[in-house]
Amino acid sequence: MTKRLDAAADGMYVISATPFTDAGALDLESTASLMDFYLRCGVTGMTILGIMGEAPKLSGEESMRFVEACLARFKLPVIVGVSAAGLDNLVAFSKRVMDAGAAGVMVAPIAGLKTEEQITGYFDQVARGLAGMPWVLQDFPAVTTVTMATSLIVKMIADYPDMVMLKHEDWPGNNKITRLRAAEQAGGRRVSILIGNGGAHYAQLLARGVDGAMTGFAYPDLLVRTRDLFLAGRVDAADDLFDACLPLIVQEMQPGLGLAVRKYALMKRGAIRHDRVRAPGPRLTDLDRAEIDRLMQRLEQKSRAIPA
Amino acid sequence: MTKRLDAAADGMYVISATPFTDAGALDLESTASLMDFYLRCGVTGMTILGIMGEAPKLSGEESMRFVEACLARFKLPVIVGVSAAGLDNLVAFSKRVMDAGAAGVMVAPIAGLKTEEQITGYFDQVARGLAGMPWVLQDFPAVTTVTMATSLIVKMIADYPDMVMLKHEDWPGNNKITRLRAAEQAGGRRVSILIGNGGAHYAQLLARGVDGAMTGFAYPDLLVRTRDLFLAGRVDAADDLFDACLPLIVQEMQPGLGLAVRKYALMKRGAIRHDRVRAPGPRLTDLDRAEIDRLMQRLEQKSRAIPA
Amino acid sequence: MTKRLDAAADGMYVISATPFTDAGALDLESTASLMDFYLRCGVTGMTILGIMGEAPKLSGEESMRFVEACLARFKLPVIVGVSAAGLDNLVAFSKRVMDAGAAGVMVAPIAGLKTEEQITGYFDQVARGLAGMPWVLQDFPAVTTVTMATSLIVKMIADYPDMVMLKHEDWPGNNKITRLRAAEQAGGRRVSILIGNGGAHYAQLLARGVDGAMTGFAYPDLLVRTRDLFLAGRVDAADDLFDACLPLIVQEMQPGLGLAVRKYALMKRGAIRHDRVRAPGPRLTDLDRAEIDRLMQRLEQKSRAIPA
Amino acid sequence: MTKRLDAAADGMYVISATPFTDAGALDLESTASLMDFYLRCGVTGMTILGIMGEAPKLSGEESMRFVEACLARFKLPVIVGVSAAGLDNLVAFSKRVMDAGAAGVMVAPIAGLKTEEQITGYFDQVARGLAGMPWVLQDFPAVTTVTMATSLIVKMIADYPDMVMLKHEDWPGNNKITRLRAAEQAGGRRVSILIGNGGAHYAQLLARGVDGAMTGFAYPDLLVRTRDLFLAGRVDAADDLFDACLPLIVQEMQPGLGLAVRKYALMKRGAIRHDRVRAPGPRLTDLDRAEIDRLMQRLEQKSRAIPA
Repeated sequence: MTKRLDAAADGMYVISATPFTDAGALDLESTASLMDFYLRCGVTGMTILGIMGEAPKLSGEESMRFVEACLARFKLPVIVGVSAAGLDNLVAFSKRVMDAGAAGVMVAPIAGLKTEEQITGYFDQVARGLAGMPWVLQDFPAVTTVTMATSLIVKMIADYPDMVMLKHEDWPGNNKITRLRAAEQAGGRRVSILIGNGGAHYAQLLARGVDGAMTGFAYPDLLVRTRDLFLAGRVDAADDLFDACLPLIVQEMQPGLGLAVRKYALMKRGAIRHDRVRAPGPRLTDLDRAEIDRLMQRLEQKSRAIPA
Repeated sequence: MTKRLDAAADGMYVISATPFTDAGALDLESTASLMDFYLRCGVTGMTILGIMGEAPKLSGEESMRFVEACLARFKLPVIVGVSAAGLDNLVAFSKRVMDAGAAGVMVAPIAGLKTEEQITGYFDQVARGLAGMPWVLQDFPAVTTVTMATSLIVKMIADYPDMVMLKHEDWPGNNKITRLRAAEQAGGRRVSILIGNGGAHYAQLLARGVDGAMTGFAYPDLLVRTRDLFLAGRVDAADDLFDACLPLIVQEMQPGLGLAVRKYALMKRGAIRHDRVRAPGPRLTDLDRAEIDRLMQRLEQKSRAIPA
Repeated sequence: MTKRLDAAADGMYVISATPFTDAGALDLESTASLMDFYLRCGVTGMTILGIMGEAPKLSGEESMRFVEACLARFKLPVIVGVSAAGLDNLVAFSKRVMDAGAAGVMVAPIAGLKTEEQITGYFDQVARGLAGMPWVLQDFPAVTTVTMATSLIVKMIADYPDMVMLKHEDWPGNNKITRLRAAEQAGGRRVSILIGNGGAHYAQLLARGVDGAMTGFAYPDLLVRTRDLFLAGRVDAADDLFDACLPLIVQEMQPGLGLAVRKYALMKRGAIRHDRVRAPGPRLTDLDRAEIDRLMQRLEQKSRAIPA
Repeated sequence: MTKRLDAAADGMYVISATPFTDAGALDLESTASLMDFYLRCGVTGMTILGIMGEAPKLSGEESMRFVEACLARFKLPVIVGVSAAGLDNLVAFSKRVMDAGAAGVMVAPIAGLKTEEQITGYFDQVARGLAGMPWVLQDFPAVTTVTMATSLIVKMIADYPDMVMLKHEDWPGNNKITRLRAAEQAGGRRVSILIGNGGAHYAQLLARGVDGAMTGFAYPDLLVRTRDLFLAGRVDAADDLFDACLPLIVQEMQPGLGLAVRKYALMKRGAIRHDRVRAPGPRLTDLDRAEIDRLMQRLEQKSRAIPA
């Protein structure tokens, strides 16, 4: 069993794809090879069953089977997305995955929360239900439709001691990071802040004080290296490497299509056997694949040219 | 096992609430009494696990348990809502409930479908997966965000022979009914059309040619009677009865709050033991309850004054 | 010049339609007859250029011409909707209409405001720009997409002394009224609260403490009478009259179509010459018109049956 | 007077910012210098009063004054955005700007159009109103909320002979371009296709067959050069240059904030005197500006390194 998530978490928590066979079944063989691939990439941890992935397309039984397959192979911290329409089942599923060895769980606000009173009303219940389990707040307005002001997140950090991490995907969001770190300087509790949004603005956000990234970008190794360069004070090289990644990041940012791009790239890198997205889902055309091939080729060439 | 749903279905298909105990567990005792209540109301059939209800708050195991409890008690046609993010699980669940004795299944388009090509692309897959099972198309743009033109629905009726019913909740939607019935007159296949939207405009829509209603209104007996009056040619009395229902219908139409209104009214009528809505969900205040009490009292008084 | 709007305003502020000729031009002759009709209905005041009407379809020059035509004929307080994308022009237009004799202006939050900080950031600017002019806050989340918590409105009441009225159209919104009135009891400044939403829930909301209604319902005289009955302690009669109005209110609530319903009813009542809605806009079918005819006939019959 | 827009239009149609003084007034001095800047950048044409800009914040009188100032200085084709809530004023404004010397007008669908029948219903009216004036269809679902299928656009190209250009901003949208060009190959009328979306995917889309770009990117000169390199067969150099632009493009893609980024960059390049965005609008922090400074510095350095 891995160590539990805490506010010191940093680095690259890769969001795992969910591999399927061409017939659409869970592909546990690819799950194992994907885990090994992520470990070789030098990631710090992993997140599974995120809301943008294919988690909603899994049955409850499939979800648990996938969690167990990941935990059996990936011996670093695993965060499990547990967002659900009903609170009872959110809590029950959280307990099951924590018992199975997860390091923590991740929760996004349910759609329909508008006012601060509604948002804290919801998370007060979540925090009570998850008492004793480390959890991650996912701040992703573009998908959840729920916008949380910086001042509200500061309050949540103060109120919910088990909330140890913020997954930041508000956009624009650079100043939110700066204000959150300022609130810490002013005496607030520190939480880990990892960025999402496919990794967009990562180089800038490292300078703004984030602790790492949590994204499914198909080259997590390069985001690991970007941060290493930044921490080593080689800021220009970090920017160069990030800029080399950006064309593929933008390709993955395409709403709806991004997941297919990502799975195709992972298949090309040998991490999974099939790039199948469960129906209903996007299909790449030959031209799409040729564009990704070219982006990968250019990315690999440019990233190799940056001195280690 | 009940008869399978077909295009001749008409009357009142009540949308069942999902009863919970005050602790938030499935309340199977109330489920049984609720089934009996609906039968006493003279409904023709029932729909369970609809998208507006609390179906998304049930685990897969709870959903199946509730389906079985309903089927064991309610000996008229039962339609089961099977809308799901993933097609594989939509089909698998449909097979399970049909094997368990459901009369048909109901499917709404997934959010995100915009163009006619995307919508038919999705339903082509659904129709293939559900081949041999009678299914209902739920047309509810306000919730699904998917708008289906009348001409598109006419095409779907022609293309999908197992689609035997349309649940109509587009709003405004009166002219859609008129155009759909005109398409039948012009040689199109007939499907059953039941209206939703809490029953709003029911009296007008009967005159426009709908076959009945599918809604969770807490007085299904009065909607049964409204249609009986209409069919008996007593149009003014039908309008009077419907108008007497309207204040409570409007109270139930309140977004988010309506389900709590409905459950409270069902509890007051003795159909279920608790008006609990699973968290996160609305809570009524004392004033809310007093307003519903008054609406129910006035409704009962006025409806009794209309000659049978 | 009429008296300026203040927090004691109550009764019926009818939202005026904007009449057009069949060729689509401003119909100033119908504007005059419409003003006279509203005065005969016993309204207390009027609101023009509201966001749900056809104000965005008017050019700046047409808007000002319509304002002047209304002010020339209607000798009771007139509130002018001034919501606009840009603050400079919002303020400039407000000054023009106040100079022309308006009693106050009405402002809705611009779309895109999410957090309380963003909302108050916007209204701080509005309040500075409108300093010295009485203004109405329009709280209509279904149209603006901006939800304002009760606690936020209470704060705005405290912070903006020129904000003398709230137009309430949050839905569900009954408890918001109760909480706003409780905040007054607890020492907050009193503002006038008029309800919108086509008048839905008016009878209940009078009991919750609202001061009147601001809606374009085609029978403002009956909403005047509803409140008079309520204030006279004849609560059952008030409910009966309101319930008689409800079928037409619901007909007008239909998104998009409602304005055409309203204009047709006003034309039938002799208030305007044409029921033209400016393009792009809805067109009624013969069946639509027949349904409205029947609703009007039933409404007039039922309302006459209620003792004065 | 410039030549009228036709389907042979290609190259870079820059979307002009609207310059304001620090007091918020139209800055006609900066308008002149901005026109000169764009001409120096080698653009082919210009678009003003686009929906994403600050056009809705201008009064009717200011809009016309700005149009005239642009036309007086910029002696290449100018397209004027004329999207409006009302059809009558859309047409009237179009006539005024065409009379003043515009090359064509640009129209986006109004929000609320859902089905193909509704969309063509609207554009049938637009096309009739604009008969004889060349117009551009703006396909920007993220802002308009209206999604137009490729097959629908093909039909519109066939039906509306005055529609000579498509501004493409659907996202993902690469395959839409491929399908539109295939429809031409199959015998459809050719229209000019320029891409928007801030220029994202430009290098790929040139290969897919677009004729150019219409975007407000602060370095239009580099997008001109990107296309020149592509047309010269220097595809790798075109990709290198585009990739060098991408970090700033992504910075400008930030919803809401992008316009402030763009205006700051234009001010830094000497094109306008002030980076003022009209209220309500975003404000950059010092850190924001420092990030843009760095992005500009890196962009200029990298672009210089690419052989001409």
